Amino acid sequence: MSRASGPRSGDAIFASVERVNAELFTLTYGAIVRQLLTDLEEVEEVNKQLDQMGYNIGIRLIDEFLAKSNVGRCVDFKETAEMIAKVGFKMFLGVTASVTNWDADGTCCSIVLEDNPLVDFVELPDTCQGLYYCNILSGVIRGALEMVSMKTEVTWIRDVLRGDDAFELQVKLLKQVPEEYPYKDDE
Amino acid sequence: MSRASGPRSGDAIFASVERVNAELFTLTYGAIVRQLLTDLEEVEEVNKQLDQMGYNIGIRLIDEFLAKSNVGRCVDFKETAEMIAKVGFKMFLGVTASVTNWDADGTCCSIVLEDNPLVDFVELPDTCQGLYYCNILSGVIRGALEMVSMKTEVTWIRDVLRGDDAFELQVKLLKQVPEEYPYKDDE
Repeated sequence: MSRASGPRSGDAIFASVERVNAELFTLTYGAIVRQLLTDLEEVEEVNKQLDQMGYNIGIRLIDEFLAKSNVGRCVDFKETAEMIAKVGFKMFLGVTASVTNWDADGTCCSIVLEDNPLVDFVELPDTCQGLYYCNILSGVIRGALEMVSMKTEVTWIRDVLRGDDAFELQVKLLKQVPEEYPYKDDE
Repeated sequence: MSRASGPRSGDAIFASVERVNAELFTLTYGAIVRQLLTDLEEVEEVNKQLDQMGYNIGIRLIDEFLAKSNVGRCVDFKETAEMIAKVGFKMFLGVTASVTNWDADGTCCSIVLEDNPLVDFVELPDTCQGLYYCNILSGVIRGALEMVSMKTEVTWIRDVLRGDDAFELQVKLLKQVPEEYPYKDDE
């Protein structure tokens, strides 16, 4: 397969990677959430666990991202956020997201998702008040960014399952550590 | 989108359905298995839970299968098994499987998978002896077939993660119940 020397578009990458049926993924993810709700009981604990699972996935998925996307090092956090929204989401979930609500010093923004395959056919019962159903996504972003030396805090601002009109994730850069070697041996 | 009137090939269906990145799916599935191993401790319980999750997914996935594949009612269990292997696996996981080892009366066969996206990069530690890592698949098949009135028993005969040369699932037809209405109200 020929390979462009510059960064590739999210569409091109998504078309070239191995994929599985989105409904199977959606149902499988739903099975995780249900399992956690059964096992952990507290919704707050489920949120934490989903975030942690996402983190563990993110620190591995970043390798696939860097290998397939052919992107170079982002010059700053702004470029990084755009890369997540335009290339990352497309490459992994087949959807695009937009970046908005930047703060003045460029260290905090929102990633807005209008389409989200994780929640197809999902309706939350009243007993799940407080659940961030898609919390795995915030963990993935946090984990992936940590592997490229950006310590972030990722929180949900809007959530369609809670009655909002879109999914909005706030990504706040806490610390940018000098990059030495992108992998931690102890994880 | 135009629609053929006859059944569609697994390739054609797979090309037309919504998909997500296979590595994301693989890592997400790995997160489930890890979670269950932590929460349930006994490997045998994990096998059961994965099978049950698969069953719950299968009873819903059959709708997507019937809606997208345009297949009519299979004349017998033999045709059903071929449909799972050639259309079902392709449509959901993007891989094909083969059907083999039929018994004399056509009620028991093996589905053999050479490629299995669930296990990419997976290595089981010694503490997981006895784990059927892909047990969700047996549950999916069992659940899906139950919704088309076939009660089956699905067991692993070969498993690459246990050192075998392929994945082999034995599917045994226990009972074919007269079809009245394909959905159960209580599930």
